[in-house]
Amino acid sequence: MAFFKRKVQFNDDLGFGSAPVIKNQRVLNTDGTPNIERTGLPWFKFDDTYTRLVTMSWTRFFMIILIAYLIVNTIFAVAYNIIGIENLDGAKGTTLRDQFFDAFFFSAQTISTVGYGHISPQGFITSVLAAFESMLGLLAFALATGLLYGRFSRPTSKVSFSKKMVVAPYQNHTGLMCRLVNLRKNSLIDVEAQMYMTFNETVDGKLKRSFYPLQLERSKISMLSLNWTLVHPINEDSPIFEKSLAELTLAEVEIFVILTAFDDTFAQTIHTRTSYQDEDIEWNAKFKIMHYHNEAGKMVMDYSLFDRTEKVVIG
Amino acid sequence: MAFFKRKVQFNDDLGFGSAPVIKNQRVLNTDGTPNIERTGLPWFKFDDTYTRLVTMSWTRFFMIILIAYLIVNTIFAVAYNIIGIENLDGAKGTTLRDQFFDAFFFSAQTISTVGYGHISPQGFITSVLAAFESMLGLLAFALATGLLYGRFSRPTSKVSFSKKMVVAPYQNHTGLMCRLVNLRKNSLIDVEAQMYMTFNETVDGKLKRSFYPLQLERSKISMLSLNWTLVHPINEDSPIFEKSLAELTLAEVEIFVILTAFDDTFAQTIHTRTSYQDEDIEWNAKFKIMHYHNEAGKMVMDYSLFDRTEKVVIG
Amino acid sequence: MAFFKRKVQFNDDLGFGSAPVIKNQRVLNTDGTPNIERTGLPWFKFDDTYTRLVTMSWTRFFMIILIAYLIVNTIFAVAYNIIGIENLDGAKGTTLRDQFFDAFFFSAQTISTVGYGHISPQGFITSVLAAFESMLGLLAFALATGLLYGRFSRPTSKVSFSKKMVVAPYQNHTGLMCRLVNLRKNSLIDVEAQMYMTFNETVDGKLKRSFYPLQLERSKISMLSLNWTLVHPINEDSPIFEKSLAELTLAEVEIFVILTAFDDTFAQTIHTRTSYQDEDIEWNAKFKIMHYHNEAGKMVMDYSLFDRTEKVVIG
Amino acid sequence: MAFFKRKVQFNDDLGFGSAPVIKNQRVLNTDGTPNIERTGLPWFKFDDTYTRLVTMSWTRFFMIILIAYLIVNTIFAVAYNIIGIENLDGAKGTTLRDQFFDAFFFSAQTISTVGYGHISPQGFITSVLAAFESMLGLLAFALATGLLYGRFSRPTSKVSFSKKMVVAPYQNHTGLMCRLVNLRKNSLIDVEAQMYMTFNETVDGKLKRSFYPLQLERSKISMLSLNWTLVHPINEDSPIFEKSLAELTLAEVEIFVILTAFDDTFAQTIHTRTSYQDEDIEWNAKFKIMHYHNEAGKMVMDYSLFDRTEKVVIG
Repeated sequence: MAFFKRKVQFNDDLGFGSAPVIKNQRVLNTDGTPNIERTGLPWFKFDDTYTRLVTMSWTRFFMIILIAYLIVNTIFAVAYNIIGIENLDGAKGTTLRDQFFDAFFFSAQTISTVGYGHISPQGFITSVLAAFESMLGLLAFALATGLLYGRFSRPTSKVSFSKKMVVAPYQNHTGLMCRLVNLRKNSLIDVEAQMYMTFNETVDGKLKRSFYPLQLERSKISMLSLNWTLVHPINEDSPIFEKSLAELTLAEVEIFVILTAFDDTFAQTIHTRTSYQDEDIEWNAKFKIMHYHNEAGKMVMDYSLFDRTEKVVIG
Repeated sequence: MAFFKRKVQFNDDLGFGSAPVIKNQRVLNTDGTPNIERTGLPWFKFDDTYTRLVTMSWTRFFMIILIAYLIVNTIFAVAYNIIGIENLDGAKGTTLRDQFFDAFFFSAQTISTVGYGHISPQGFITSVLAAFESMLGLLAFALATGLLYGRFSRPTSKVSFSKKMVVAPYQNHTGLMCRLVNLRKNSLIDVEAQMYMTFNETVDGKLKRSFYPLQLERSKISMLSLNWTLVHPINEDSPIFEKSLAELTLAEVEIFVILTAFDDTFAQTIHTRTSYQDEDIEWNAKFKIMHYHNEAGKMVMDYSLFDRTEKVVIG
Repeated sequence: MAFFKRKVQFNDDLGFGSAPVIKNQRVLNTDGTPNIERTGLPWFKFDDTYTRLVTMSWTRFFMIILIAYLIVNTIFAVAYNIIGIENLDGAKGTTLRDQFFDAFFFSAQTISTVGYGHISPQGFITSVLAAFESMLGLLAFALATGLLYGRFSRPTSKVSFSKKMVVAPYQNHTGLMCRLVNLRKNSLIDVEAQMYMTFNETVDGKLKRSFYPLQLERSKISMLSLNWTLVHPINEDSPIFEKSLAELTLAEVEIFVILTAFDDTFAQTIHTRTSYQDEDIEWNAKFKIMHYHNEAGKMVMDYSLFDRTEKVVIG
Repeated sequence: MAFFKRKVQFNDDLGFGSAPVIKNQRVLNTDGTPNIERTGLPWFKFDDTYTRLVTMSWTRFFMIILIAYLIVNTIFAVAYNIIGIENLDGAKGTTLRDQFFDAFFFSAQTISTVGYGHISPQGFITSVLAAFESMLGLLAFALATGLLYGRFSRPTSKVSFSKKMVVAPYQNHTGLMCRLVNLRKNSLIDVEAQMYMTFNETVDGKLKRSFYPLQLERSKISMLSLNWTLVHPINEDSPIFEKSLAELTLAEVEIFVILTAFDDTFAQTIHTRTSYQDEDIEWNAKFKIMHYHNEAGKMVMDYSLFDRTEKVVIG
């Protein structure tokens, strides 16, 4: 017995297979990444390291740079001491601790190419090491520049999805709606949205995971200026027509929203996704209007109302 | 009563809703950005800050860098003085003012990694701070590089739209025309244009804002070499057929021109937009021809004639 | 009387209008840029300056950087001397000439942030200027980085067109052919070509410039591995069917070849163009085959044969 | 006699011509590059050098930078010695060897802009050379930054193809399958695959190379989350229906797999290809399933199973 009406057959385009989903294990995380654990990969992959450095938070990124700076300088400080601290002309430390820090600060001055010169390298091996370290400093700098620019120029999620979906009156029936907004000042053009639903259903006596598209009343706008409410009309053609929240919960429903747009400030196509589970759907509610004309006649958009909903009575 | 003939129904693809527009409140600014005020957002957003730094004018950008440089050096100068100016070997200042500037210039030499060394850090805490500052200098440099490259590589508006639209004779009727030109030497290919009109009209007794496309005699050219005049033929199929300027003004008409092109110097797709209001339309005028063959037979394009129009008598 | 058979009407998609062309004034240069002189523009435009710096030859680029370095250091050297050379501690010059060079080299050490420190700034104004100059050095460096990366990452013309077109036997008739080759090791995918012809013809008693597409036997290949010969079959459907070279010359014929491809090393779409005039067409010749299997069975591609043709007798 | 059933004629879109292939000379290498030797090109091409520097391995890249650093410093060291080592104030070397290294380390300190200053330039010519070298240092740094960022931002092969193809049961017949997986954490969207086959066949008594597409059971998925098995059903419509491995080997079969996807972390379209020869096909085997739900219900993907196959008995 198929749980939902099968109006449009849909293949599993997300590549998750048809194994049924266990409670509270979403297919996609709310940030649109697949909810998958990965094993069996080499523990260090340069490319993945780069991707991680580019996508991590700014705080973490700066912490890692700071720690790397400390570690590299410590290694060089130890090396300069092993070669002989007497080769660092101007280093005045007499205890081991002071000699370590003399070498540490000399290293920092070398790798950052600041090179005050009150401590300077003497002797062949120390000079070679210092010459190598300053070259390394240049490369590290180049690396940092590349990483920073990589972080900047990456098309980050400029689009925010409402935390909840609502089921609100729509034409003669109701509609399943989510809202989205552009948090940046740049313009998004040729914005396209798709909505999909996945749930467990019994087909030929076997519980499996099915995927269906949810038709949108409008799936494309040419410019995202204010906000945009995506509406899936819950009419006879909808797979969730006349379904209750309890039924959706039982079937482990998850709804995907996929968005494509062109960012004309950076000439980049952006893709962004989110997913909603049954507990994210608010029934008999609608989104508060978040734009109005002010006294001067100018359109005002109040972002603080973005996630606000209000109850409605559905006929 | 619908004000204009409804030949082609058009949905509000710009997401501005259907509230009527109040006098002189354009929907789009002439630079193509939406005329919207935004509230309710956090006052600082890193990503938006980046976008702003990349899109602001060069003068403002350099002023901000200069001011940031002064502020950061002031903060470090104060810090070096708090730790103790005696830790800056070579600093000769005896008054508080001179000591501040000694520390200030030492800070500048450190953060820029110039490090002359006539002032150099002594003692643990000062050395740590200087090592940290030089690392910060590297990162600030990397940041500046990223911002500068971001500014360069951004697909800026290479296309200029004429300040005015004209209504000139076209075939048996008239045409609503605007002209555009590529201000750069690079080539724009696969250039596509669209024209839309928005105005207030009374539908079912309610004043609302409507959007209509305006058909173009030609909407695509394969290469923008000289200039291009967009022509909307004002014939029976046009929503502004037999409308007067007064009627357009009353309906708060606004005309959008949207352009897409491929810039083959930088391999980027560029989008650019503008909008015209009723006061930007010049009736019974045409654009002056801005290209000619010189005596050697070579095509010459005179950009100073770009916005020039001349009166014509219409039938 | 129309000069050529008008099988396919073609609009002037290159935006050059319909004025007839005077002898030896090509519409496109061989590098694909429009052959247009531009006047009436402001003499300095930042964006165009950037484009020029990114597209000029490497020799010229490095010369400009060297000259800018000399000029900036000269200006600062003069400024340091005006403030007072005694503020540069360590400068030993006694003659005006030596003092200028002391300041010049101090400036070079400051702007490049090398800062040896054997000459160091003293006094408030000199220190301020040196602090400002080192900041400028950082920015100049950032600028140079941006320009260099801009030069690298720009999708340069990786595709070379043969210098000549040939008219060679093709099926039962002849074909107008040009050859193209990828000079780089990267792969070009989804390669598409178009051929157009423009010439003067008399329409309704008036000499005008017409544009026609020339059908290609094949206009798309999925990968450009070796070389590709574009063939326009000169059959009954061709506008140059049974035309002689003299007739083409009289009509000021120019043939455009436009190529689009995707470069998968840099994930960029590239566009490239060239144009041929009547004197670039070699009749009764064909291109020498430039690839063969060597003794080990491996495919070898000999680029030195790229522009080589050999005479053929056309039936 | 045509060797294979000619269900769909296919043109040679890869531009390799129709010469038959000699044993073990693949058309494409496994990394998707054409297996071609190139001669007749100028030995040095700047653009190709850049491409090579960006695409080579990290180890080789850093070795080249290190060697270039050594060579440049050696050249400058020789130059400083020719001008006269006495112009390097602070250089204490008395033997030729020591004087060379003094100049070498001074050069390293100048080009890296570390400039300690314990060795400093004196005299006009040495100062000019040092000023020039520090400018060169800045440019070299800029170059390194550009190269490093070029390496990072390049869309590298994130997709791995299985080493072997398998012929496994599929519906009522068998299927020719290969598997692919995304090795990175980023998401690949709008993933499209194509499969082609090339082999020697005798047409009109002449041995030539033919190209055929192999239809895929599914050629597009909207997101590559886990792994994806491409299946070419070997049914009546397949050119390899009822062919044995021996027949494929005789015909020098080579199978191409071409993949296109959009990487939404870097907003780039990526293309990747591979090729399989007859010895890469495993008959009567299938790929081991590499994902499962762990005890917490979470999807786990084990990459170590990626290339594992298991024997199956085909009906």
